[in-house]
Amino acid sequence: MNLYGKDLITTQEWSRDELTAALELAEDMQKNRFSPKYSDILAYKTFFMFFYNPSVRTRQSFECAATELGGHAQYLEPGAMRLKTKKTAGETTEDAAKVMSRYACGIGIRILEDKITKYGEGDEMLREYARWADIPIISMAHDKYHPCQGLADIMGLRKHLGKDLKGKKLLLYWGHGALARSWCSVQEALLIYSRFGMDVTVACPQGYDLDPRVVETARKNCGENSQKFEIIHDPVEGYNGAHAVYSRNWMGPNAYHDGEFHKQEEIEKAMQYTDWICDQTKMKLTDRGRYIHPMPVDRGHEVTDEVCSNNNV
Amino acid sequence: MNLYGKDLITTQEWSRDELTAALELAEDMQKNRFSPKYSDILAYKTFFMFFYNPSVRTRQSFECAATELGGHAQYLEPGAMRLKTKKTAGETTEDAAKVMSRYACGIGIRILEDKITKYGEGDEMLREYARWADIPIISMAHDKYHPCQGLADIMGLRKHLGKDLKGKKLLLYWGHGALARSWCSVQEALLIYSRFGMDVTVACPQGYDLDPRVVETARKNCGENSQKFEIIHDPVEGYNGAHAVYSRNWMGPNAYHDGEFHKQEEIEKAMQYTDWICDQTKMKLTDRGRYIHPMPVDRGHEVTDEVCSNNNV
Amino acid sequence: MNLYGKDLITTQEWSRDELTAALELAEDMQKNRFSPKYSDILAYKTFFMFFYNPSVRTRQSFECAATELGGHAQYLEPGAMRLKTKKTAGETTEDAAKVMSRYACGIGIRILEDKITKYGEGDEMLREYARWADIPIISMAHDKYHPCQGLADIMGLRKHLGKDLKGKKLLLYWGHGALARSWCSVQEALLIYSRFGMDVTVACPQGYDLDPRVVETARKNCGENSQKFEIIHDPVEGYNGAHAVYSRNWMGPNAYHDGEFHKQEEIEKAMQYTDWICDQTKMKLTDRGRYIHPMPVDRGHEVTDEVCSNNNV
Repeated sequence: MNLYGKDLITTQEWSRDELTAALELAEDMQKNRFSPKYSDILAYKTFFMFFYNPSVRTRQSFECAATELGGHAQYLEPGAMRLKTKKTAGETTEDAAKVMSRYACGIGIRILEDKITKYGEGDEMLREYARWADIPIISMAHDKYHPCQGLADIMGLRKHLGKDLKGKKLLLYWGHGALARSWCSVQEALLIYSRFGMDVTVACPQGYDLDPRVVETARKNCGENSQKFEIIHDPVEGYNGAHAVYSRNWMGPNAYHDGEFHKQEEIEKAMQYTDWICDQTKMKLTDRGRYIHPMPVDRGHEVTDEVCSNNNV
Repeated sequence: MNLYGKDLITTQEWSRDELTAALELAEDMQKNRFSPKYSDILAYKTFFMFFYNPSVRTRQSFECAATELGGHAQYLEPGAMRLKTKKTAGETTEDAAKVMSRYACGIGIRILEDKITKYGEGDEMLREYARWADIPIISMAHDKYHPCQGLADIMGLRKHLGKDLKGKKLLLYWGHGALARSWCSVQEALLIYSRFGMDVTVACPQGYDLDPRVVETARKNCGENSQKFEIIHDPVEGYNGAHAVYSRNWMGPNAYHDGEFHKQEEIEKAMQYTDWICDQTKMKLTDRGRYIHPMPVDRGHEVTDEVCSNNNV
Repeated sequence: MNLYGKDLITTQEWSRDELTAALELAEDMQKNRFSPKYSDILAYKTFFMFFYNPSVRTRQSFECAATELGGHAQYLEPGAMRLKTKKTAGETTEDAAKVMSRYACGIGIRILEDKITKYGEGDEMLREYARWADIPIISMAHDKYHPCQGLADIMGLRKHLGKDLKGKKLLLYWGHGALARSWCSVQEALLIYSRFGMDVTVACPQGYDLDPRVVETARKNCGENSQKFEIIHDPVEGYNGAHAVYSRNWMGPNAYHDGEFHKQEEIEKAMQYTDWICDQTKMKLTDRGRYIHPMPVDRGHEVTDEVCSNNNV
């Protein structure tokens, strides 16, 4: 197996064996942190990070990782890049990506809702970079997917539920909240949990459908593993027998209209669903379920303090 | 003595022996700059720097130091961190600090007047981080203190006045100026100079009182060393017999009102005190006194060009 | 020859031998990229980068270079530096540069049109830094010159046209465009191409004169190498027999008036000259000429896609 130079835009585009290899490597790196076994892999090498949107942990973890592997992650704010857009003169992705390929060993890109005019544009941009760059393009979260978050989630579950996740029940639970969150983390979660053989239940109020093509793929993944995939609209029922509960707010499918992301509207709508919170009473219905959240946690909305401080993977 | 993992929020919270150990280590590092003795201490390690306020030298010196010790300092602007505040949803310090503790070996924080609503809020925030983080929190200047500046000042004085500072006279002199400066550097100066046995005179116009608790602590420090501590309001008298003169503008105690920092008001008030400038005539009254300033220097207001260019520690 | 500590504000201020030495070193570094021969030159050392204006490749290449040489380039935005200006209190360049000289091994500065009030101010600032700093000041593009771009251009030409550029014809060609570009790259190109013995033709519409002192110096450089230097105003003629064509938009000499840079006015004026584009028909008149552009390329204005994607040095 050769992963050298491979783009990572969603885990769905890597084979199950490739994902497992990446996870096992990461687990060995965690065990051998700061050991010479890994600490010069990126010696003298640069990884570019393009943050169209700011970030806390994604930025910190990528930059720390480059440092721990002996290299350097360059933090770039592409607002300053004078790239060509539909409306303005500027540099083409072709020109930019070709030169960057000579400088660096990889490019990470983060682009979310408020930097695009409609769902899918961020994904297109990553694929345009991937088309022209000779070096790997890694999503650091974009409108559709968040593959590194997905891999980290599975890595946590493998640690706490064991390496064989087959048949374990995962509840992906919509929480109300004041942040109108992207679909990227939850869609990636659906894809990778279903790939690894989990029994997946999505619980959300009516009107919070995710991207239907992603849902279809997750359903198909479950089918291939002979596992159940279901979507329910009850705030409690899905907790029954769950081995892991992932609660997260996400925006509705009409968050974009008229070429804009309507954040405030989404927040107001979401904040009405006060029943939709992961709390200790609901967690008691699970099979000693672990609580997962991709962070930052909107405590008091997505989850109670009690669950969050005491039960996190 | 074990300083490993210790927070540094003000030098007052370290023992005199601990401070001396840190100074001696720094002096040895300066003598052995770029020697293998120190250059791999931080190999592959990350230090986070949170700049709520921008900075020149503090940022440059921390990032250079990390590089010279073999590690990397990550420059972070926490405006992008979506932290919870009294008014907005977001991440708690508990959640943020716990994860960061797994990534880095320390966190530096800078937060000054215009990012808070009243004196003391910055200090509270640092202590909240210190409460939750497993790694040391280092002030890179906050509303109350600036411990690394204080240590650097003493390091300079040890070099120029000798290691035994006991009984040497230090004049902390308010200068007029157009920058409405924070109390942090001068308060830290008062605390550390008095700890190290100096005879301390504060000279400022009426109406420029510093934090009364800090002043009380400095007075007590002097007492414990059987040294004099006095506050005077004459622009000349304090120079008599001084071994070191530290001139600096600082804001008055009413700079905050109605939940805001009133910078322009402070500048207009301060600019009227044109007698309050450190100049050559005054410096001639000293005992061959050295001139100190924590920078950036507001030349022509806090000090004349003549003194600043020729007499700096 | 000792280049240690030498400022680089324009290549014109280095001797031809010094420039050749720098080029040969760069060529050897390129051949031995990541070899131990060079990879610890900057170990534990810091290079400061002051970006008054943002940048893509200049920033990426400087920061990558520092990493590849074992050191670290600090990205600084001097807007936060509280430097003294004619209008505001703040720190003098003297004070800033003297302290920085103790931290770092060099300072790169980028300052372009929109950060200054008239042509020449950026150049003055670099010289003021050079006056006070004990470490080299390197232009990363300023209003007058772009020496590293000039050296890179010559490095490319040496690769594609051979090391002896004497008598090779270079066409410096104004292209219409929507970006109102600085004179820095084209002026540096004129100076360095003429130094290295090329036969130089500048082609631009009437009204696009560059700095007359720079043009005079380039003409003199050509004379010293017994080469032709001419300025023409025809969009086609200059292509005849050219070995290299450098197309680039640049602003007119009246871009600044009333103490401001009038970008929009310049763009509107420039966009009328639609004949001024480097295309395949014109390139056919050359002597198998190579196409050069300092990037970012404004495709469709300065050059056609056909030429740009297939014929670039």
